[in-house]
Amino acid sequence: MTTLGSPMTPFLALDKGKLEANIARLRGRLKTPLRPHLKTAKSVEVARMLFDGQAGPITVSTLAEAEAFAAAGFTDILYAVGIAPDKLDRVVTLRERGVDLVVLLDSVAPAAAVGRARIPALIEVDCDGHRGGIAPGDPVAAEIARTLHNGGGEVRGVLTHAGESYFADSPAALVAAADNERRCAVQVADFLRAEGFQAPVVSVGSTPTAHFAQDLTGVTEVRAGNFVFFDLVMAGIGVCDVQDLAMTVVTTVIGHRPDKGWILTDGGWMATSRDRGTARQRVDQGYGLVADLDGVLLDDLLMTDASQEHGILSIRPGSAAELPDIPVGTRLRILPNHACATAAQHDQYQVTDSSSAIQAVWPRVRGW
Amino acid sequence: MTTLGSPMTPFLALDKGKLEANIARLRGRLKTPLRPHLKTAKSVEVARMLFDGQAGPITVSTLAEAEAFAAAGFTDILYAVGIAPDKLDRVVTLRERGVDLVVLLDSVAPAAAVGRARIPALIEVDCDGHRGGIAPGDPVAAEIARTLHNGGGEVRGVLTHAGESYFADSPAALVAAADNERRCAVQVADFLRAEGFQAPVVSVGSTPTAHFAQDLTGVTEVRAGNFVFFDLVMAGIGVCDVQDLAMTVVTTVIGHRPDKGWILTDGGWMATSRDRGTARQRVDQGYGLVADLDGVLLDDLLMTDASQEHGILSIRPGSAAELPDIPVGTRLRILPNHACATAAQHDQYQVTDSSSAIQAVWPRVRGW
Repeated sequence: MTTLGSPMTPFLALDKGKLEANIARLRGRLKTPLRPHLKTAKSVEVARMLFDGQAGPITVSTLAEAEAFAAAGFTDILYAVGIAPDKLDRVVTLRERGVDLVVLLDSVAPAAAVGRARIPALIEVDCDGHRGGIAPGDPVAAEIARTLHNGGGEVRGVLTHAGESYFADSPAALVAAADNERRCAVQVADFLRAEGFQAPVVSVGSTPTAHFAQDLTGVTEVRAGNFVFFDLVMAGIGVCDVQDLAMTVVTTVIGHRPDKGWILTDGGWMATSRDRGTARQRVDQGYGLVADLDGVLLDDLLMTDASQEHGILSIRPGSAAELPDIPVGTRLRILPNHACATAAQHDQYQVTDSSSAIQAVWPRVRGW
Repeated sequence: MTTLGSPMTPFLALDKGKLEANIARLRGRLKTPLRPHLKTAKSVEVARMLFDGQAGPITVSTLAEAEAFAAAGFTDILYAVGIAPDKLDRVVTLRERGVDLVVLLDSVAPAAAVGRARIPALIEVDCDGHRGGIAPGDPVAAEIARTLHNGGGEVRGVLTHAGESYFADSPAALVAAADNERRCAVQVADFLRAEGFQAPVVSVGSTPTAHFAQDLTGVTEVRAGNFVFFDLVMAGIGVCDVQDLAMTVVTTVIGHRPDKGWILTDGGWMATSRDRGTARQRVDQGYGLVADLDGVLLDDLLMTDASQEHGILSIRPGSAAELPDIPVGTRLRILPNHACATAAQHDQYQVTDSSSAIQAVWPRVRGW
């Protein structure tokens, strides 16, 4: 039997039972259709777990993902990054293969070319100042829609993403972020409809707001991606428990520095990423919490620093816990800050059930 | 002709002329043999440029690199991360193929197994408190050496790395870091020789100290890796100029937020990594400086924020420069904080001469 003691470290372990439970939890609370974002998992097998043989709907962050999921039979795909003109040919190629691939627009300039290519688009709305999108009250929405429509394209609707919800610090703030996300999207959809466009799709979502939204009136689909794995940032804002984290990085102890209170591992930032998302939270978890191979957390032990191929574990500053005596060669799990970034450092998942037996190896989609 | 206008963004562009100049500069100043660290480039083609048909010596950070470079004909390889016992079989397999693969030890526990496997090892010395290694005056060096020797292995010598040199803030501090690195390594080598071991190798190095060392008496080889590409962290401590950076990330403008002073690109942290190495320097360069496709820097324009597939460009805080008017679809280069981390986000380099014509595509070694 292959177990988590077998593959060369560092590698990603994925607990299929926790993955299933995370998916069931969100599916159980949402009555609105879910369009999961596969930018976190980037795995055809995870996509299949999200659906029972259905062909979507899914969300992707790269055309490489769109192509991989289309090849696996997914035909309802949203590419949720503003479209660059150079990428239209690849979108058209997928659409000609029968994939309903939809793109995003937030300005007039590229809309004519998207229209001429007969590509449906959502208009991106900025609900909280995090990246692209038009302001909810900006009449440019109608100009983008007209340009798209007159070019020959379809105004499929609107999309927004509550990026600020990742920094919410209470259930009330999460509920408010979800409500703001909904209101901004519905406002622009209503405006477009008043301007004569059907705009059937109103797409909202983020992992935090998908789990806290109280009212989704007017919303036609909810996007979330991180929820399949969760991470310490999500645990820090109260969206999940630390025990819900489905993906961990397995590392091996390679040395000790008792004079410094350090345990060294072979999992550096190449294995965890440089993401330090919890640094801005109430509890800074360093590069991650540390558990044994069975998943039992080690008391107040953190991965506190990283070089390319070295991880440094030490006791949380201020804690009275003692550095445990862990021999060279012992394998440990690191619970990551940010699942999307940590997963991106790896090419595959070693998939286990609740035991440490490896049931499968699932590849990840890479590149753009 | 394929140019940097052709590949789908984001991607890595590698200027072969700058790469050659960076290599020539370090080779020109060092009289001591160079054992370049290939953890930055992870490219067989870059390794070949570093040597004229010779089979090394090289340094690697993973056994995947060791295997890839061995397959390309490199037979003198140092694996410069403390050895985990589970990895000895792979080391032995390479050695049986005629590769002189050497490992690192900094404790007694794994030394017997390394010895029994007939693997030569360097003893790792900590010269400035950055990760593994024994203290220079610690007599445990002799105990590690004896355990290795009695097991059947070879005490090849000592190794140290001036990790603190990345935080040096003046030429004098860099010279001092190099001198400290040399003294620590030579001290332990002398101690081992007094204890009856030959310890022929005294290996030191980092990109900063390799460029500032004034005296390498007693040192037999110098390691450096980052220097082939350089990056903004190295420019920030004065080891190179910004114009020396050989590797950049090519991105495309996908939108504008004039109300926020933002230009959005399709190059987020997935393309640049989350590394913010310059945040601790005198001049914080955000996620990187911005140049046009010809490499001409745009005045005080920085990549100031990143989500997974979105980069945000804005004017440096405090600068009077105006946000340039750059249309959607325009390609821009991002000069990275940390070449090792940025390169790790990609699978290949698009290699150019001083023009933007692409001469070759070089793959990178991935995984562990």
